[in-house]
Amino acid sequence: LYIATSLDGFIAREDGSIDWLTEYENNPETDYGYSEFYASIGTVFMGRKTYEQVLGFGEWPYEEKKVYVFTRQKEPLPREKNVEFVSGDIARFVRQLRENTDQDIWLVGGSQLIKVFLKENLVQDLIVFVVPIILGSGIPLFDHIGREIKLKSGRVEKYKNGMVRVEYKVEERMENNRIRNNKV
Amino acid sequence: LYIATSLDGFIAREDGSIDWLTEYENNPETDYGYSEFYASIGTVFMGRKTYEQVLGFGEWPYEEKKVYVFTRQKEPLPREKNVEFVSGDIARFVRQLRENTDQDIWLVGGSQLIKVFLKENLVQDLIVFVVPIILGSGIPLFDHIGREIKLKSGRVEKYKNGMVRVEYKVEERMENNRIRNNKV
Repeated sequence: LYIATSLDGFIAREDGSIDWLTEYENNPETDYGYSEFYASIGTVFMGRKTYEQVLGFGEWPYEEKKVYVFTRQKEPLPREKNVEFVSGDIARFVRQLRENTDQDIWLVGGSQLIKVFLKENLVQDLIVFVVPIILGSGIPLFDHIGREIKLKSGRVEKYKNGMVRVEYKVEERMENNRIRNNKV
Repeated sequence: LYIATSLDGFIAREDGSIDWLTEYENNPETDYGYSEFYASIGTVFMGRKTYEQVLGFGEWPYEEKKVYVFTRQKEPLPREKNVEFVSGDIARFVRQLRENTDQDIWLVGGSQLIKVFLKENLVQDLIVFVVPIILGSGIPLFDHIGREIKLKSGRVEKYKNGMVRVEYKVEERMENNRIRNNKV
């Protein structure tokens, strides 16, 4: 997880919009460790809705990375460079891929895919940016995962604009490779 | 708000239990600023369910404070020393009480009362303790408040046991007295 959330735990408004994040985007003063994080990543995972949203932003930002988009849709989606669509057993796919890569995997989102990953114990690292706002409604970061996960908190940092970054590691680790997960 | 929450935003399990907080309770090493906070408080607010839960803990912990319990129940409740039951217009009651006190008010919880207070703009300070655990389900700290509230983050502190304390102030302030709100 390398993801931004409101204090009340939403990663986007009900309609998926993230306008409230605009003032917290990477700026000349700091990129919140993004470039360092991004360089450490070999593969990017995201859900279909997140993919469509990123497409809507214009330029495809993950060109240098292998991207897997998880979808249950039959209809073909526009396909960016290096993007592959995956359906079927997510946990099996992820575990297989991990055995064949040493680099970290970044789970970009969204809510539904994060839920599956947490349920299936596929997440090892969480980097959460808490934005100083209560949205009141929206798409949850943790959507009643349905299982308990003990964490170990790591570095905590507060930025000038009020955003707070906290790092966590999942305590029960089953694999060695790491899956990360970032802002939608 | 002076309240403990899981990373996924729950203040208690579905059945109200807070067993997962036991290892994070005040200990000889630190009381997480509780005694200082408690000394600053003149009045305590809580909802009926929280009241019943605190009663179940045994000794009544708020004897020296004036406590108001908000309830819509007709049935009489056991009444501790200095406790009064309030029903009817919560916002009006709170605003009236504030005009007659200079000391801070502590909103103990729970979820339903916090929601009303946030909706009605009755909260000015939030002190949130994030416990390094994902519960997976439970009673939410912020239950789809339904309005957006901009915050200003203050002091951030990480404790040895992994708990992270963050302070917030509500940006649009309407009153001068402060309502606080703590662990259920």
